[in-house]
Amino acid sequence: MSGKNILSFDSVNLDDEHGELIILDQTQLPGKIEMLHLKDIYTLQVRGAPAIGIAAGFGIYIAAKGIQAEDYGSFLEQFRKAKEYLNSSRPTAVNLSWALNRMERVVTSNSTRSIPEILGLLHDEAVAIKDEDIETCRRIGEYGLTLIHDGDGILTHCNAGHLATSRYGTALAPVHLGRERGMNFRVYCDETRPLLQGARLTCFELLADGVDTTLICDNMASQVMKNGWVNAVFVGCDRVASNGDACNKIGTSGVAVMAKYYGIPFYVLGPTSTIDMSMKTGKDIVIEQRPPEEVTEMWYAQRMAPEGVKVYNPAFDVTEHELIAGIVTEYGIARPPYEESLKEIFRKKA
Amino acid sequence: MSGKNILSFDSVNLDDEHGELIILDQTQLPGKIEMLHLKDIYTLQVRGAPAIGIAAGFGIYIAAKGIQAEDYGSFLEQFRKAKEYLNSSRPTAVNLSWALNRMERVVTSNSTRSIPEILGLLHDEAVAIKDEDIETCRRIGEYGLTLIHDGDGILTHCNAGHLATSRYGTALAPVHLGRERGMNFRVYCDETRPLLQGARLTCFELLADGVDTTLICDNMASQVMKNGWVNAVFVGCDRVASNGDACNKIGTSGVAVMAKYYGIPFYVLGPTSTIDMSMKTGKDIVIEQRPPEEVTEMWYAQRMAPEGVKVYNPAFDVTEHELIAGIVTEYGIARPPYEESLKEIFRKKA
Repeated sequence: MSGKNILSFDSVNLDDEHGELIILDQTQLPGKIEMLHLKDIYTLQVRGAPAIGIAAGFGIYIAAKGIQAEDYGSFLEQFRKAKEYLNSSRPTAVNLSWALNRMERVVTSNSTRSIPEILGLLHDEAVAIKDEDIETCRRIGEYGLTLIHDGDGILTHCNAGHLATSRYGTALAPVHLGRERGMNFRVYCDETRPLLQGARLTCFELLADGVDTTLICDNMASQVMKNGWVNAVFVGCDRVASNGDACNKIGTSGVAVMAKYYGIPFYVLGPTSTIDMSMKTGKDIVIEQRPPEEVTEMWYAQRMAPEGVKVYNPAFDVTEHELIAGIVTEYGIARPPYEESLKEIFRKKA
Repeated sequence: MSGKNILSFDSVNLDDEHGELIILDQTQLPGKIEMLHLKDIYTLQVRGAPAIGIAAGFGIYIAAKGIQAEDYGSFLEQFRKAKEYLNSSRPTAVNLSWALNRMERVVTSNSTRSIPEILGLLHDEAVAIKDEDIETCRRIGEYGLTLIHDGDGILTHCNAGHLATSRYGTALAPVHLGRERGMNFRVYCDETRPLLQGARLTCFELLADGVDTTLICDNMASQVMKNGWVNAVFVGCDRVASNGDACNKIGTSGVAVMAKYYGIPFYVLGPTSTIDMSMKTGKDIVIEQRPPEEVTEMWYAQRMAPEGVKVYNPAFDVTEHELIAGIVTEYGIARPPYEESLKEIFRKKA
């Protein structure tokens, strides 16, 4: 497949006829482009908070189609079991429970309908979650474009692009949308250890879109900023607390600290579905701890750290609100103090 | 070899009989412990600023032994050619030219002696450079120990330990010296992309010394600091300017920015041979740029970034003096303002 086509297919799709969730196997990028066809959603092999939400919608729909139930009560019980199961697969991303709760409401608010009718409504809801995501990302891109100028240097961490959503991405939405309009940005991609989403995924999708892309190791961000090459930092988010504290891929908070030191604005871009207004601060966010082998040997031709060494390998970190210049959503840009501005965003949404 | 023996042999040694420089092949750690026997010093396969100085001393001595010269003038001319050649091998570390200049002074200040006599003096000078390094590192360790308490958490970047010098190391000297006295520190090692000196070398030598060692990816330092696990940051240096700006492995400046944000003291530890009083600020330091393949494919079982992506891969960066709490040398600890305190260090040395 030519790289140019990357934006022409979606990372998460439903094959309703075969009852399959079709996802791009991102673990094989950039070497190989392969789609996975999943019938049983044992584990959520999807990354990127919005994509996880879309996959959860399709996944619970496929699970619901497989339910053997005589009556509504039995259907609801089994639906909730499947929901619990899917919900436990990733503890950090709020989009997972957000999408599952939205799907559950379709079931609970249609208790008088037949099960085939409910299945039809679940299908439509899952498709709506995906369609809304595309529109949401487009709008995030529009707001993000107001923060930068053609030719600017953007630094990003991890992958919050096309591959993490269904089209434009979040952090990369302004870059992709800008490309559609003939703009050119210089993007610096942190490689994002240990799983190298920046090197493998962000570089892949940006090159496919013809963007001027430079890969750096995570520890080179300070030098790139000092060189004056970065006009703004754009990152995605896995969960945002109501005070603006933003949880994202491990290393994001370090990038924010460096950006503040060098006087570069640090922006978080994400859909309102990622903002958890019930959470007061980022301190309450549970951080997933990952296997040591990701650091000591994964990807490598040989083991790269001695046997017996302890490894600390958190998947995410929290960037405190005082380091964030703005939170870009599909309803506009929230600015500090976030307790107020995020409420205003939700008033616009309502 | 049992890891316990790591401190019992030196990383750089001279085999005078065979005219060989014997170095530990650190590129194979931690998987394999192998010594390289070098007769022709085509490239300096040594890392770590003090070790480069020691290897340069032995290397130019071996080269001098091979000179075919009838008279002093011819000997000096060929000696200077060999010196120029060795001097060009690494542009950043000041210890290289420092050691070579010191060896050259032996030649120029003994022009009335016979060539065999000069060779004897060159041998003694090269051995002295190494012996002084051991004593220098011990003293750096003593001063460093005054900055921390038993049980403290230390974060370090790259490898400025035993493997970069001939015994205690610089940044790790307080840790190794403390171990000799029954103290225990918790050390967090940045893996230090792209060449993974932290994962491969620092973890290796610390575990061999029985130190409580935790490996992290470079981008996890912010979270480790935020967790309150780090009492001090200790790093080495490749060159320090007279205003205190310190050049060290790429990523060091980012660690310093994060330490400042989290209120953790950031110390640079190094011998006075690393301090270049002729250089006003770190802006004048030439930063070595390294091959893109180190980032995109080195170590990996498969290529980890798409073909065609640009890569920025500087070997070092400069940490501005305002981020440094102290510069620990074998003559004491310099504190800001460094223009004054570094001069005072050199007064003590004189």
